Amino acid sequence: MANLKQINIGLLGLGTVGGGVAKIMHDHAQKMSDTEGIQYQVTKIFVRDIEKSKAKHPGLPESIQLTTDFNDVINDPSIDIVVEAMGGTTFAADCIESALRAGKHIVTANKDLVAIKRGLDLIQYAHDHQLDFLYEAAVAGGIPILNSLRTPLASDKLFSVSGIVNGTTNYILTKMVEQGRGFDEVLAEAQALGLAEADPSGDVDGLDAARKIVILTKMAFGVTVDLNEIPVKGIRHVTARDIQVASSLGYVIKLIGRANLVDGTVYAEVAPTLVPKTHPLSTVRNEMNAVFTEGAATGEMMFYGPGAGELPTGAMVVSDIMAIGQHIHTETTGQPFANYSQDATWKKAEDIKSVGFFHFETEDKQGQFIKLVQIFDDAKVSLDKVFQEPSSDDKTAKIVVVTHEMSQAQLQQINQATQDNPELNLISYYSVLPEAK
Amino acid sequence: MANLKQINIGLLGLGTVGGGVAKIMHDHAQKMSDTEGIQYQVTKIFVRDIEKSKAKHPGLPESIQLTTDFNDVINDPSIDIVVEAMGGTTFAADCIESALRAGKHIVTANKDLVAIKRGLDLIQYAHDHQLDFLYEAAVAGGIPILNSLRTPLASDKLFSVSGIVNGTTNYILTKMVEQGRGFDEVLAEAQALGLAEADPSGDVDGLDAARKIVILTKMAFGVTVDLNEIPVKGIRHVTARDIQVASSLGYVIKLIGRANLVDGTVYAEVAPTLVPKTHPLSTVRNEMNAVFTEGAATGEMMFYGPGAGELPTGAMVVSDIMAIGQHIHTETTGQPFANYSQDATWKKAEDIKSVGFFHFETEDKQGQFIKLVQIFDDAKVSLDKVFQEPSSDDKTAKIVVVTHEMSQAQLQQINQATQDNPELNLISYYSVLPEAK
Repeated sequence: MANLKQINIGLLGLGTVGGGVAKIMHDHAQKMSDTEGIQYQVTKIFVRDIEKSKAKHPGLPESIQLTTDFNDVINDPSIDIVVEAMGGTTFAADCIESALRAGKHIVTANKDLVAIKRGLDLIQYAHDHQLDFLYEAAVAGGIPILNSLRTPLASDKLFSVSGIVNGTTNYILTKMVEQGRGFDEVLAEAQALGLAEADPSGDVDGLDAARKIVILTKMAFGVTVDLNEIPVKGIRHVTARDIQVASSLGYVIKLIGRANLVDGTVYAEVAPTLVPKTHPLSTVRNEMNAVFTEGAATGEMMFYGPGAGELPTGAMVVSDIMAIGQHIHTETTGQPFANYSQDATWKKAEDIKSVGFFHFETEDKQGQFIKLVQIFDDAKVSLDKVFQEPSSDDKTAKIVVVTHEMSQAQLQQINQATQDNPELNLISYYSVLPEAK
Repeated sequence: MANLKQINIGLLGLGTVGGGVAKIMHDHAQKMSDTEGIQYQVTKIFVRDIEKSKAKHPGLPESIQLTTDFNDVINDPSIDIVVEAMGGTTFAADCIESALRAGKHIVTANKDLVAIKRGLDLIQYAHDHQLDFLYEAAVAGGIPILNSLRTPLASDKLFSVSGIVNGTTNYILTKMVEQGRGFDEVLAEAQALGLAEADPSGDVDGLDAARKIVILTKMAFGVTVDLNEIPVKGIRHVTARDIQVASSLGYVIKLIGRANLVDGTVYAEVAPTLVPKTHPLSTVRNEMNAVFTEGAATGEMMFYGPGAGELPTGAMVVSDIMAIGQHIHTETTGQPFANYSQDATWKKAEDIKSVGFFHFETEDKQGQFIKLVQIFDDAKVSLDKVFQEPSSDDKTAKIVVVTHEMSQAQLQQINQATQDNPELNLISYYSVLPEAK
């Protein structure tokens, strides 16, 4: 073992991700050194409270030094790689910047930071200084999706990437679908189980998924999109009734983040979306994640696995550490993680097309149905499925319409015509994912 | 563009895989050079018949030289990478050996070769001479599964890999399941569609899947298993009746190749297997492939996509070409594709455990059921589901038994007791995949 090169790791943070990294580095040390001929060792960890951290991680090797001063980690000349596992964008970014200036390679799972300009600037700084900056665990936890997009799929031209990239909302929607329960009740359960945070808005309002779509868009297409440009809808307004009606027509409701690139125009969005039950994404249940890609050569692929959690996320952070170890060993650090870049213009709203699912309530009287169909006809939208049944109170009728593909402009026109007609009440609208092959 | 490093590729073979490689290298040339700053060019292709090849590939650039002498490719000093796209194990291996001796890096999709000793020896030769030998497309066509196992998942300890890795049999079983048709009829259709070969035995008898399991076992666990050691059952004996009974109990029949590694013992097999309808593998339809992994840290993951085809397979060959281009650029060629290796002993038959699905027919008279249950009780096998119904002829009864986990020794005992009892007719037996999380 004396001939093994040793690589020292400094951890910033010992929460879920940091704890997972420390555990895997310890449990898998032998396999890691057997694989690469490199011995990896966590030598220092920056924590807020040393006693609490020791109490929470009794298995932590004695050889690891805990410190409450992050400079102890960043300025330690024996440390090669700094793992930022704190989250957040301000202090984490400052720490990473200091670490880069001290010549450390960086690994992080911090999608909040990597999805914004400050993160991109730090990545550029790393690249300019022959330093690695990897973040595989930032999207879809344990699934090695960024690696797959970056390397093997670089040979293809991808034009669509979509996915279930937020485990909390997928858990909530799965329980709503399978148990017929309401949003508030399932959210409370998810919070009790630790699957949703006390303030769940980052998850349930879709921002977390949007951040991951920014990163996926960069990796899949080489296109940088602005997080603020992405239309984001969360799942708060999804009702048990919507779910039931969608199910009876062959759909499951999922929070889908998606991006596509056609003829140099890019579009991305996050919204609760109807997924046909025959589509592979429809089978992704509970807190699992999946990313579905479409490419000119590879066609349709799906990468499925755990979207979060101490060990899955930790494993992907450790995979980045091992990649950097290889690069240090072969003196090839500083290659950009997202190799490919191209320009694309943001798609104009009127060019965005989608299949639409409309759920109306009307007074249950003669003539309402024809009035509604006329609205779609006026907008030149053709219908794929129409479904009417009386509501439980016998005074209103429920009408569900699934269209063929229509533009946002047509959608606006239908919305306007519906609003102009007080007898027609548009309960909910969802876009529908196309059938998979 | 003048500063771009140029890498020249020689192709051996211009069939499905070779044609896909040539097309992708041409269509995606700009993206490939933008991504890596390397210009890739196919300069020579070895074919059997130049005129036929030109007629079949009218879009082939004029700059590519076709030759009927493979030495023209192998001995061309300007060629850096030789892509073997002929298949077969003898001539292909000889060509690869000559190419390696001439200092060429190798890419192949030839699972027949890579799964046997001759292939492993060539890979070792490449490694010993600082040459790359990559074969991502050899398993599951367009799915970058070997890359994922090799690099990001090296940080985990995987203990199980299973999958649908033969598109032909999955197409046949899908049609049998969804349309209630028989094996022979669907096979004939698959042959007419070009999804099955004139001699379908390599696919339908399971050998092709077994080869891929040998490769997956090496990549997932670092363990080399002997192809001849793997018990292989194909799908010829799967009946529409089995499928229907299995479906009514919540299972889909799939040809599953699987390998697991527990406490230093390894086991692998290929057999038609009952997959619970809630398992992600159950949703893999038609000619699609998927590989399902289980690891200590990452838990359950699935990689889904096209298992074959000109462009998907071609894309993965091209991804290997790009990887080698990077290695040439950074002077890091010759790293083994399967980095990790460990020893494991082949599991003793009596230690292999599985849930069993038994389908019996008995004379429909009093006492038969208890006799059958007694056989399971004698073997100390406990039952999970039992299901009896009269057969259509009213003279025989159909009894289906799903057990809890039992050993091969217990299975033998049940088989023996059934044979000793002429009134009990064991129509079919399948093992059952455990439920996914």
